[in-house]
Amino acid sequence: MAERKEETADYALSHAEKEGLYKAIFSRRDVRSHFVEKEVPDAVLLRILNAAHHAPSVGFSQPWNFILIKDEEIRKRVKESFERERERSINMLENNKERQKKYARLKLEGIMESALNICVTYDPTRFGPFVLGRTSIEDTGVYSVCCAIQNLWLAARAEGIGVGWVSILSNEDLEKILAIPAHVKPIAYLCLGYVEEFASKPDLERAGWLHRMDLARVVCYEKWGISESEKWSELSEAIDRLST
Amino acid sequence: MAERKEETADYALSHAEKEGLYKAIFSRRDVRSHFVEKEVPDAVLLRILNAAHHAPSVGFSQPWNFILIKDEEIRKRVKESFERERERSINMLENNKERQKKYARLKLEGIMESALNICVTYDPTRFGPFVLGRTSIEDTGVYSVCCAIQNLWLAARAEGIGVGWVSILSNEDLEKILAIPAHVKPIAYLCLGYVEEFASKPDLERAGWLHRMDLARVVCYEKWGISESEKWSELSEAIDRLST
Repeated sequence: MAERKEETADYALSHAEKEGLYKAIFSRRDVRSHFVEKEVPDAVLLRILNAAHHAPSVGFSQPWNFILIKDEEIRKRVKESFERERERSINMLENNKERQKKYARLKLEGIMESALNICVTYDPTRFGPFVLGRTSIEDTGVYSVCCAIQNLWLAARAEGIGVGWVSILSNEDLEKILAIPAHVKPIAYLCLGYVEEFASKPDLERAGWLHRMDLARVVCYEKWGISESEKWSELSEAIDRLST
Repeated sequence: MAERKEETADYALSHAEKEGLYKAIFSRRDVRSHFVEKEVPDAVLLRILNAAHHAPSVGFSQPWNFILIKDEEIRKRVKESFERERERSINMLENNKERQKKYARLKLEGIMESALNICVTYDPTRFGPFVLGRTSIEDTGVYSVCCAIQNLWLAARAEGIGVGWVSILSNEDLEKILAIPAHVKPIAYLCLGYVEEFASKPDLERAGWLHRMDLARVVCYEKWGISESEKWSELSEAIDRLST
């Protein structure tokens, strides 16, 4: 009987602990402005990196590296890559002048103003060549690195630190600037620092660029495209209530 | 002065809230066995999906879908795909009999025993073709989906629900079985359910497959491969202490 009891034990976190996780998830922002001049203490940075390092990884391969960058000269070169790529991007909107104007007004990175930058990379050779669970879908190695990035982002939020992911960059430039070897792939370039505020909504939502979709639109039942199902009717109604 | 004060306000979560996030991160496991027969209540599933839906996404494109699967017939077909891919994988270890034996003994999925399966997909056409921030590095769309998966995983852990990511599958099979259209890509196949226990360490660590690396080995300073730097000496020492 004792064993049976154990089997149904509840491993949920306490109410307060759950609230902490959900608060981090819902109040996390992609921060491009509002950085303040304040160093991130080593102890805090350590907790954030350790959280990232405890992400799931395919075959426990832990294929990530974190390059921490404070050097001004390095950052300047990254910023130049951003400027070039941004220019390219603006040109793509040549046939939509309204969007082009909107885009040009957006602040999209905080490379120089943030306390530090972190480049997160993927090393496919780590513990390889045979990586358990990566034999059918090779990209799962990259997916692991992304899970680590999300851990880092949430831990930073919990510590009161904003993170901005700069994706308007050339990976070739990054590889050169950071001396990343050919077999390693940059996955994310992040800017971290304390902030004046965490906005209540994502910047792109506030700027009217796009809206948050109703959850109902991204949930399917049993197969792709099935938005209603008798078996799932109660959940489906609950999801609809959430959206209204 | 009032404004200045605001600027340096501390947005960190409370100690208890932080503990909640870190507990979810450090006690999260990839669960393949120990599932118990117990339904996941709709309200709980709703919170988990909503957490996933609040992940960061490039250009706020929210390119994810969540296909919820309980149907036995569908799961059986997915399980068959797993069996085929597992067999292929075992054959790859033909020249390493010891690892092959170890691999063959591992329980690598809980497709049939879990309360439900979720296939998470990536739709590159969502809000496209111009997706802000995806113009230089196209894969950033996929990265967004992975961030959503990590949110889902952590929320599930907080709710006391185990998640197992089954990556030993053929995407072609998944596309057929779940009627996923050609332009959409399956990213993850997850098994969810209440569990008997969350193991203190990852299964693959306990089985002696691989060990967790020291954090020091995955952190670099200013450039790739730089493991020591005067500017970073205190952090570097703190990381070393963590490892010992």
